[in-house]
Amino acid sequence: MTHPLLAKHRDTLDNALAAIADRGYFSIYPESPSPRVYGETAADDGKAAFTALLGQRFDIDQPGVRDHVATEDSPFGIDLGVEYPRTEPGALIDAATAAWPSWRDADPATRAGVCIEILERIHKDVFTMANAVHATTGQPFVMAFQAGGPHALDRGLEGVAYGYFEQTRTPATSYWEKPAGKGQVLAMEKTFTVVPRGVALVVACATFPTWNSYPGLFASLVTGNPVIVKPHPNAVLPLALTVRHAREVLAEAGFDPNLVTLAAERPDDRIAASLATDPRVRIVDFTGSTSFGTWLEDNARHAAVYTEKAGVNTVVIDSTEDFKGLCRNLAFTLCLYSGQMCTTTQAIFLPSDGIDTPEGHLSADEVIAGIAGAVEKLTGDDAKAVELIGAVSAGVADRVGDAAGLGEVVLASRAITHPSYPDARVRTPLLLKVTAEARKSYGTECFGPIAFFVTTSGTAESLNLVREVVTEQGALTMGVYSTDDAVLDATEQVSRDVAVHLSRNLYGGVFVNQTAAFSDFHASGGNPAANASLVDGAYVSGRFRVIESRRHVPPRANSLSRTRERTISPLVVLV
Amino acid sequence: MTHPLLAKHRDTLDNALAAIADRGYFSIYPESPSPRVYGETAADDGKAAFTALLGQRFDIDQPGVRDHVATEDSPFGIDLGVEYPRTEPGALIDAATAAWPSWRDADPATRAGVCIEILERIHKDVFTMANAVHATTGQPFVMAFQAGGPHALDRGLEGVAYGYFEQTRTPATSYWEKPAGKGQVLAMEKTFTVVPRGVALVVACATFPTWNSYPGLFASLVTGNPVIVKPHPNAVLPLALTVRHAREVLAEAGFDPNLVTLAAERPDDRIAASLATDPRVRIVDFTGSTSFGTWLEDNARHAAVYTEKAGVNTVVIDSTEDFKGLCRNLAFTLCLYSGQMCTTTQAIFLPSDGIDTPEGHLSADEVIAGIAGAVEKLTGDDAKAVELIGAVSAGVADRVGDAAGLGEVVLASRAITHPSYPDARVRTPLLLKVTAEARKSYGTECFGPIAFFVTTSGTAESLNLVREVVTEQGALTMGVYSTDDAVLDATEQVSRDVAVHLSRNLYGGVFVNQTAAFSDFHASGGNPAANASLVDGAYVSGRFRVIESRRHVPPRANSLSRTRERTISPLVVLV
Repeated sequence: MTHPLLAKHRDTLDNALAAIADRGYFSIYPESPSPRVYGETAADDGKAAFTALLGQRFDIDQPGVRDHVATEDSPFGIDLGVEYPRTEPGALIDAATAAWPSWRDADPATRAGVCIEILERIHKDVFTMANAVHATTGQPFVMAFQAGGPHALDRGLEGVAYGYFEQTRTPATSYWEKPAGKGQVLAMEKTFTVVPRGVALVVACATFPTWNSYPGLFASLVTGNPVIVKPHPNAVLPLALTVRHAREVLAEAGFDPNLVTLAAERPDDRIAASLATDPRVRIVDFTGSTSFGTWLEDNARHAAVYTEKAGVNTVVIDSTEDFKGLCRNLAFTLCLYSGQMCTTTQAIFLPSDGIDTPEGHLSADEVIAGIAGAVEKLTGDDAKAVELIGAVSAGVADRVGDAAGLGEVVLASRAITHPSYPDARVRTPLLLKVTAEARKSYGTECFGPIAFFVTTSGTAESLNLVREVVTEQGALTMGVYSTDDAVLDATEQVSRDVAVHLSRNLYGGVFVNQTAAFSDFHASGGNPAANASLVDGAYVSGRFRVIESRRHVPPRANSLSRTRERTISPLVVLV
Repeated sequence: MTHPLLAKHRDTLDNALAAIADRGYFSIYPESPSPRVYGETAADDGKAAFTALLGQRFDIDQPGVRDHVATEDSPFGIDLGVEYPRTEPGALIDAATAAWPSWRDADPATRAGVCIEILERIHKDVFTMANAVHATTGQPFVMAFQAGGPHALDRGLEGVAYGYFEQTRTPATSYWEKPAGKGQVLAMEKTFTVVPRGVALVVACATFPTWNSYPGLFASLVTGNPVIVKPHPNAVLPLALTVRHAREVLAEAGFDPNLVTLAAERPDDRIAASLATDPRVRIVDFTGSTSFGTWLEDNARHAAVYTEKAGVNTVVIDSTEDFKGLCRNLAFTLCLYSGQMCTTTQAIFLPSDGIDTPEGHLSADEVIAGIAGAVEKLTGDDAKAVELIGAVSAGVADRVGDAAGLGEVVLASRAITHPSYPDARVRTPLLLKVTAEARKSYGTECFGPIAFFVTTSGTAESLNLVREVVTEQGALTMGVYSTDDAVLDATEQVSRDVAVHLSRNLYGGVFVNQTAAFSDFHASGGNPAANASLVDGAYVSGRFRVIESRRHVPPRANSLSRTRERTISPLVVLV
């Protein structure tokens, strides 16, 4: 019998399945926070709901709660003071294990219906989520709404679609009939049952608590695994809301809410390490530092571990047909959320003797000045700037201060006073100019609003440097500007050799640091920045196994066999 | 343009793709060695071709050959004396790397066509292969023909089909169009390129040199990776033939033959370890011992490692509707190839107070005597016995001798003189009776013609023991005999919990140790016996990555977009 939640969401699932097959544009959760889309009161209602949470205990009725912790430090200086349950790691695993059987034994379609209902429930509360993401991450509000809400939900639905497809590509039952000579057949019925891998752990990051965790969360959940969500201590609220919605939907659908729990912690608890090394935890999704990601890969060997770590994203400027467009486009990339996207460009390579443009040949310094000028323009008005660059953590603010010595300062970082939040840490991008030799500066991730212009002997050297840096450090994105097909071809080859996705000649409303769910892959899994791609077959296929059972049945009237062979050896029938 | 080899094999590929989708019966290479199928002279021609190879140097024109080695020791005592090129490991990797680009850049369809042509070329020479497998492995001839030829080729084609599907589920190009407000759209063309992972190593075993290596070999090859084939020193000839055919087809199709090379070695060279730990080797497929398989998993961390190791296969006898059928069926399993299939049952659990049968209640000893009697019957006539049990290596012969002390001998192993091969090591199965406490005896793999009857307090304990042993040691197969639906249901649950494929109540011409390509999965990847399943999505999806490139294009006349949203926020357009 079809579960009512699957019936309700069947169209959504089918549309998502069609989208991952053609990888054209698809989105189901509207990205505009406009009252025309969400209603006149939606924004105010969400703000009020968010405000009502502040300074309160955020209860989650999960077992093993030891005490409560309030760990968030808003980059905007918003006084959150929300207390979350701090739970024994072992109790979370016990609860997940106890909750598992009915979810494990539900069919993939039912699980997909429940997962999509969770996404829809989160979406109904999207303005609360937007405020939570905004306050905890430092993202400007519209971005927090989009990246933290609809785009994260799209990525979650993408995980559901890939997970559902992967589970159902093998039929649940199959009839097998083999000719056995003299008109006889061997006939069997075979069942193929999805057996989920086990308890899953999602370790989220401080900057994109929902966007980076929803793919793993929903990919694990739809494939039948209970999920323990371990938020970053600085961005708990978005995932506490997520867990609460998930638990409500699960309970309403007749499942144990402990299939999704929250593992809030004190910053020094290292609960992620405790959880990941418990042999009962069989899947780990992680976004964060290279050091802890690598530690997880090395130490959670009993689990399937999917990591997204640090990298060095590059742009190669060779020549352009639209210099102003180049400057505007790159400036937006460098400014957006203070360069704190894992996809933001860090190193921009350009020939030291300049590039050809429609305005004639421009020197390297003229190119750099053009981009820096566009950044200045985007950040010149404080009130407008904060809606683009948001705010940063104390650690990032310190890093910006320290980074000025890493090269020739092309554009100094400016501390801005936020018009609404007097305690906000707001820093405009720091732009530095270095030579190719300064690999120590530009060649490792320098997270935050810090970017390097690297002058080279020409595009060939630029591409060689990209190849070397990305091979060593990894990358999630790469961009190129060129009017020369030979250069573009060479760049394509480099991007494939180092397994990084490439954006060519972006001048308009698409930016190298942005990916669209259902169409763009996020990370490739083929270089050190990530061992997985969001979302592809490899990302979901290891989250479960298919177990077969077979037995003889009477042969059917109409054979299904496809064979060229009708004779069989009498002695040894090796199937 | 369609490659001629793809055009030639398009139907085969499509049929294989249909078969993996419905998992019904499918086979393309006839399994009967009958002259009615293969022609009157095929068997003699193959024997002659095989004989002509003996005592000769088997030349393969690959670079870096140091010297030649003849390492094979036929279980039948057939004097092989074939010399194979022994090659520097580094030279093999260099050659594979140099050969790679044109294969890497070929499209998946072309690679599939070439792979199927290789399979067909091997098939044309199948009687030579059958003799080579027979002589090197000790398999009886008909089995060597079937398992070493058609069934191995079917498994290879299955790997091609899964690999092709996985590469093409993402379209090569996609048009993406997003509404950007006021009737404007953002339009992009995106290309998705399969980027193979890199040099692949296939480490083959001594008992099924082709069957166990073809899935990995062809899965890696079709996904664009060069393959170094490392045969077991005792079963080189089947893979030398394979490599020769592959190289010929590759060269004829315009590719570098060094895409497939042979890594023959002296037994103490440990070339597999040298190759697997070279950072340029990015994929390893292994069949063999748990110790080396685990070593590879632990030490080839830079590579995707797929292992099939040891395990303890079990059968639970609870009750039966056909006692004679049970005895015949299990006896065949225990005898076939002297229990040297990785899928052969090792431990048969039954209640110490016996079971219900149509002939009434039988005591445990009566059940054991029935099965032992069926084994005796199958092996009673020496000339017929050798065509079923084949021959064993010196190591296995020693193990059979040593194992008699592990329990109460129910049926002693007998050394048989082979009518055709006076030096053959032929041993009939040793059957032992033990109690549940004797876990040290029956609870670890005892490779060869050795099986244990384990008496228990009842089926509940039998299932508990299966759960414990398989959780600890892993297994590839499990069988159950019962007339009780509740027992069958409980057994199904155990099989899923320990991730082992189950066969229920086999009385006829299908045996628990046999799997059919395209329909049955071989191993699950979910217990210690193997970290992968032959063949599923997870087995192929990690052998390549998909790299995207995107650029703006003019919007098309007819939008392909599917969206519920037509408004967009003016400030921040986060894709």
